[in-house]
Amino acid sequence: MTTTISPLAPAGFPALPAIPGVTLRIARARYKTWDRCDLTFVTLDPGTVVAGVLTQSRCPSPEVEWCRKALILGQARALVVNAGNSNAFTGDRGRAAVENLAARTAQHLGCQPSDVFLASTGVIGVPLPIDKSEAGLAAAFTAEPCGWEDAAATIMTTDTFAKAAVTTAIVDGRTVSLVGIIKGSGMIMPDMATMLGFVFTDAAVEPAFLQSALSDANVKTFSCITVDSDTSTSDTVLAFATGAAGNAPLASDEDTGADAFRAALADLCRQLAHLVVRDGEGASKFITIDVTGAESDRSAHRIALSIANSPLVKTAIAGEDANWGRVVMAVGKAGEPAERDKLAIRFGETQVARDGLAVTGYDEAPVAAHLKGNDIDIGVDLGLGEGRATVWTCDLTHGYISINGDYRS
Amino acid sequence: MTTTISPLAPAGFPALPAIPGVTLRIARARYKTWDRCDLTFVTLDPGTVVAGVLTQSRCPSPEVEWCRKALILGQARALVVNAGNSNAFTGDRGRAAVENLAARTAQHLGCQPSDVFLASTGVIGVPLPIDKSEAGLAAAFTAEPCGWEDAAATIMTTDTFAKAAVTTAIVDGRTVSLVGIIKGSGMIMPDMATMLGFVFTDAAVEPAFLQSALSDANVKTFSCITVDSDTSTSDTVLAFATGAAGNAPLASDEDTGADAFRAALADLCRQLAHLVVRDGEGASKFITIDVTGAESDRSAHRIALSIANSPLVKTAIAGEDANWGRVVMAVGKAGEPAERDKLAIRFGETQVARDGLAVTGYDEAPVAAHLKGNDIDIGVDLGLGEGRATVWTCDLTHGYISINGDYRS
Repeated sequence: MTTTISPLAPAGFPALPAIPGVTLRIARARYKTWDRCDLTFVTLDPGTVVAGVLTQSRCPSPEVEWCRKALILGQARALVVNAGNSNAFTGDRGRAAVENLAARTAQHLGCQPSDVFLASTGVIGVPLPIDKSEAGLAAAFTAEPCGWEDAAATIMTTDTFAKAAVTTAIVDGRTVSLVGIIKGSGMIMPDMATMLGFVFTDAAVEPAFLQSALSDANVKTFSCITVDSDTSTSDTVLAFATGAAGNAPLASDEDTGADAFRAALADLCRQLAHLVVRDGEGASKFITIDVTGAESDRSAHRIALSIANSPLVKTAIAGEDANWGRVVMAVGKAGEPAERDKLAIRFGETQVARDGLAVTGYDEAPVAAHLKGNDIDIGVDLGLGEGRATVWTCDLTHGYISINGDYRS
Repeated sequence: MTTTISPLAPAGFPALPAIPGVTLRIARARYKTWDRCDLTFVTLDPGTVVAGVLTQSRCPSPEVEWCRKALILGQARALVVNAGNSNAFTGDRGRAAVENLAARTAQHLGCQPSDVFLASTGVIGVPLPIDKSEAGLAAAFTAEPCGWEDAAATIMTTDTFAKAAVTTAIVDGRTVSLVGIIKGSGMIMPDMATMLGFVFTDAAVEPAFLQSALSDANVKTFSCITVDSDTSTSDTVLAFATGAAGNAPLASDEDTGADAFRAALADLCRQLAHLVVRDGEGASKFITIDVTGAESDRSAHRIALSIANSPLVKTAIAGEDANWGRVVMAVGKAGEPAERDKLAIRFGETQVARDGLAVTGYDEAPVAAHLKGNDIDIGVDLGLGEGRATVWTCDLTHGYISINGDYRS
């Protein structure tokens, strides 16, 4: 496993404010043979509401099933995150481990088990060891509170850097803060869901509105990234709103500040989603794919994902090779409406093809120069309609093979 | 570009009979800066019928469009194959290059241009240079006839070995031969179509029956392989039947020998399809994925492809890592009916998971031993119905990245 920080990582961990009503603690459950914290315990003040988006996998982890059920009530008092073991595909033993963690946490806080949210990440098929999780949780109960960077580092697995983002919005005359932490590096193609991400805000928000804002943000952010086309069994994004800011609770789009809150949440989710791509396993390039002129937004999204998931497109970009014909191939295979002779392709600022062939006098030099950078832009216009989508991905390198050919050992 | 022969290659090129009515010639068109034959010219005796399956890409090459139109007539006198340039996405210039090659061949043979079939393979987006193709074709017209191995080598691009197969069938009391050659190594996920493959038989077969037999064979063979999930703009399989064997022409499933011919053609196509996987770019393992118990055959096929195309499954196998949880992930993401708690997974002869969790007393040792071999079998049973499918693929290694990060240079 690599320990080198991704070349696409930001310069440093961002400065983040505390979110009133949110208390972070970490502990060592030792789910793997590592000497690091791997259990994150977040307590949330009474009155905190919660929304979430979860993997659409047909083989979800018991944590995902637990959260799906608990989200119906919309109330949260705690979040427990385990790193190093996903507990997915473990049958009754996995379910028992989840129920045990929730019950012990509820007893400690004097709340209902359904107020406790859980997420686990790591190898699939190994039941979460109850003894380790109990010991880790007990240690977390008595630990000193910690900061965001420690929490963001504790939820990591193959991630090479701790990931977090912040934004603010003015709601009802008050400035509310939104802070998110996220982990994810491989097995990343959220299907209307995502990896493990947690958003915290002091805004007062009704659960239904928070769910609506999070679902909308998800569609344009987490659902628009892919590292390797593989969708996790454990993808989870939860948003917690403590209400400590004291604004009149947001309940509908008519409320003052509703638009600002929606925009801020979407901005935060976009930042977090980009960080996952920037830590894509083995990534050396951050790639933005803009598709326009499709028959619908949905069609544009599928075409953009077809390009973003093409191993041949991704390896060409890794090799800084201006092989735009592979983009043609990826459009052609997407199974979506496309007409070869209306297709136009752009790399960076340079139009390379139009009307079904290379532009007259095509000069590869500016494209080659663009490909030497870390941030690559590809634009595809289908010339059919108004549908558009943007998807973000990374390249496919030897690093990905090295990381994943020997992940468990 | 690697020049090492794939470790999965057969021991040698097979012994192949001549097919009466088929004459092979090769020449140097020098489509790339290489000193090798790259133009294959096959003449077919009058009366030869043809069938074909072609890429479903929305951005097909002009050769594919030409063949699609010519196949309607069902008659063939020649096949011209160019290696090193796919001529795809080249607009009017690409179409002109195709029409020119067909016209010159027709003039040389005294036949219709629609009797001439064409296929090209190589980089996308560069028009086939007419001067080079004309010179190459003229050289081929006067070249001495050659054997199958030369023809199979001349259609190669990134392939590391020449690929061919043979079978026979008894039709109407006569033994007919079927010989096929094929190329393909990357950009392999035929979508009801395939890479460049050519089948020749001396059987007498009506065009409609030949098409039916080829389409059926395709669904169970070429459409069941994938190297990298990328579908080519140029995928083409053509089957030519010269009729020289003198049997009563096969026209329907009621005819004597119709079943034998169908079975022989399917067997040949399966052999050829496997050879493509065995030359998958960077491949070190040949992987068979059997899915049973799905709601339908179509659903089983999609689940099998989801496993076969998962980078995390493919890299785990490359690393000889018994990480069967990644198979669970790939089933879960397929978007097809699946119930986690009914799922069973087998690696080689070893059942690893059943009823939604690892089998009691799971011993990884025999799985690890199986993964050290070159031929890997994965079985998935969904426990839902009678649907089944088999798909063949290879692993994902550093070799794939090396080949495709620097393909054009």
